Amino acid sequence: MSVTAPLGFSAAGLTAGLKPSGTKDLSLVINTGPSDAVAAVYTSNRCKANPVLWSQKASADGHARAVVLNSGGANCYTGDFGYETTTLTAQTTAEALTAAGTDTKPEDILVCSTGLIGVGGQGFRDAILSHLPPLVAATDTTVEAGQDAAEAIMTTDTVAKTASRESTAGYTIGGMAKGAGMLAPGLATMLVVINTDAKVDQPALDQALRAATNQSFDRLDTDGCMSTNDTVILMSSGAHDAAVDTQEFTSLLREVCLDLMHQLHVDAEGAHHDIAITTRGAASEADAVEVSRSVARSALFKAAIFGEDPNWGRVVAQVGTTAAAFDPTAIDVTINGVQVCKASGPYEDPERVTFERSVDVVIDLHAGTDTATVWTSDLTHDYVEENSAYSS
Amino acid sequence: MSVTAPLGFSAAGLTAGLKPSGTKDLSLVINTGPSDAVAAVYTSNRCKANPVLWSQKASADGHARAVVLNSGGANCYTGDFGYETTTLTAQTTAEALTAAGTDTKPEDILVCSTGLIGVGGQGFRDAILSHLPPLVAATDTTVEAGQDAAEAIMTTDTVAKTASRESTAGYTIGGMAKGAGMLAPGLATMLVVINTDAKVDQPALDQALRAATNQSFDRLDTDGCMSTNDTVILMSSGAHDAAVDTQEFTSLLREVCLDLMHQLHVDAEGAHHDIAITTRGAASEADAVEVSRSVARSALFKAAIFGEDPNWGRVVAQVGTTAAAFDPTAIDVTINGVQVCKASGPYEDPERVTFERSVDVVIDLHAGTDTATVWTSDLTHDYVEENSAYSS
Repeated sequence: MSVTAPLGFSAAGLTAGLKPSGTKDLSLVINTGPSDAVAAVYTSNRCKANPVLWSQKASADGHARAVVLNSGGANCYTGDFGYETTTLTAQTTAEALTAAGTDTKPEDILVCSTGLIGVGGQGFRDAILSHLPPLVAATDTTVEAGQDAAEAIMTTDTVAKTASRESTAGYTIGGMAKGAGMLAPGLATMLVVINTDAKVDQPALDQALRAATNQSFDRLDTDGCMSTNDTVILMSSGAHDAAVDTQEFTSLLREVCLDLMHQLHVDAEGAHHDIAITTRGAASEADAVEVSRSVARSALFKAAIFGEDPNWGRVVAQVGTTAAAFDPTAIDVTINGVQVCKASGPYEDPERVTFERSVDVVIDLHAGTDTATVWTSDLTHDYVEENSAYSS
Repeated sequence: MSVTAPLGFSAAGLTAGLKPSGTKDLSLVINTGPSDAVAAVYTSNRCKANPVLWSQKASADGHARAVVLNSGGANCYTGDFGYETTTLTAQTTAEALTAAGTDTKPEDILVCSTGLIGVGGQGFRDAILSHLPPLVAATDTTVEAGQDAAEAIMTTDTVAKTASRESTAGYTIGGMAKGAGMLAPGLATMLVVINTDAKVDQPALDQALRAATNQSFDRLDTDGCMSTNDTVILMSSGAHDAAVDTQEFTSLLREVCLDLMHQLHVDAEGAHHDIAITTRGAASEADAVEVSRSVARSALFKAAIFGEDPNWGRVVAQVGTTAAAFDPTAIDVTINGVQVCKASGPYEDPERVTFERSVDVVIDLHAGTDTATVWTSDLTHDYVEENSAYSS
């Protein structure tokens, strides 16, 4: 179940011809209300793609009626022409929605793009604009329509990613995501649209989204590379009557975000092992995140895991590069349940470590009580291959 | 010409049996004076190897008589036993030097180790200690002795690295280096010993070394991984009578450092392309270094260069992750002389870029007049292979 799982949303996905593969590449999600509250978080990359520049402005007032998304071109570093394409995309969508009976302004339309940087010329523009009216006409509230929308944002993703949860109160949160490479914090190369029919006002929506992404998407760091197009959008239709406990809502939203994040994780480009790096005994949550992330970014550690080598020395060496609070002689490292390093020295025999697809690294700093997990992938021949050949 | 190029130095290298290959693995460089001034810089990794912990203390007074170096084991994260091994190494060397007629204290001996983290047990200790007396006996001032010393510190290096320069005033600076992987700032996995017969007092020696390493070894960043054992030592014998201009000395020292750095660069593990990333038009030198380094650390950019894909989008996306001063719409990127990106958009046809072993990336921020180069390697199948199998 995807973006159409909650009441008050319709969606569609079709082929506009942006991808050589001929698969779906244009996606639309409409919030039919009654509420049009929206919250969004965007990449912290200072060199942002045109759709991000547009959507940041358009979502600033906390209202949005629909999100148009395309794969097959990031419309990033495409200059004024590219920004104009995004503006025209919003305009054309608003016109089609108005013609269909929902009075809509261009500023109520958010736009997301994904694909190669630098792609966004005349052919790209024409393909999108000419397919927006049929896209609006195709929208529906069915499960299939939600699936179509999720499929149309795939790039190197091997599967469409969707997730949903229903609260005990009866309202629903449902979303879709794409992302397989350039996954790093702030947020990861991901486009995510999450909908809910819960009656949540905009400030609460915004707060819940920031809390949930902070502990999910922001902790996926497959290759240390921060995208130019990352966007996570949360829309509320308010179409369900149930009273909403905002704490429960945030918790449920985090579950949906973590579910989508794990789907992104296991589908990361070229990965052979899905690695969870947990730092515990930290003096603060920020310290725990910093330490886990430093290990997640070590090319040497990631290559070792590819070779199924429980190389704890490369873990401790990365911990040493951080500013976290710890005693350099008191670090423990456990890999897949075997404590290979105790007090910064060898302990259990590394030969005892067995490997499967999922790898669990636990670092204990013995400096406090906080803990955090960062998820990453191993560094493989397939990663090198996919990313050396991606644009050719 | 290596560490024995200047007057007042002798050296030796032999096989102690630390490496399965049976090649030379124990190295000694002696400053026979008259001066015993020393300056040194060490890894900024907070989890330091035992020899670094020892040498930091031993060099703090600005005096040292000799440096003992081994390959075949980093003696890092080997606990109290490992630290004791380093102490015993210094002690045994001092005793052997004293027996040979040069009164020496253990605190006058610096120790460096390189090889696998976690290696430094009883066998390692016994092999080193038993071979120190013959090592002292073998020291000589010849070119060959300097070459032996340089060969004995090699790990995955394919060639011994040495360099020397003679000043117009007549004094000489000569050094040796090792390092092929884990090359990243603060300093890189490198051991470097540089000698001079110039009469330079300790404070000037220290200042010159910091200035020279800051613009050479600190700007080599092959894989973003910071070592636990990095050490650069500069010894002055003061055996040459010439008056020394400290500015000329620093400049000559930087030349030697850059020469050794480039030798490390072209011998980096698994590299197929040697990449120089120059940022110009920066508001400060620190900004230029930050921007160049951010690109040097992008797995996606490095994989693209392996595939000989002039993917400027991945360059601009990395620039966007920095805190440097720039206008996101005004960035130029030139790869091997072809300006593929102007004002953050496509410009010359990337098809025009041709590739050889050496790759030149120039980023212009148009934000000032400062410039800096960081050197890195591409991300290749060979890098993944070497580092996934290194410890097995």
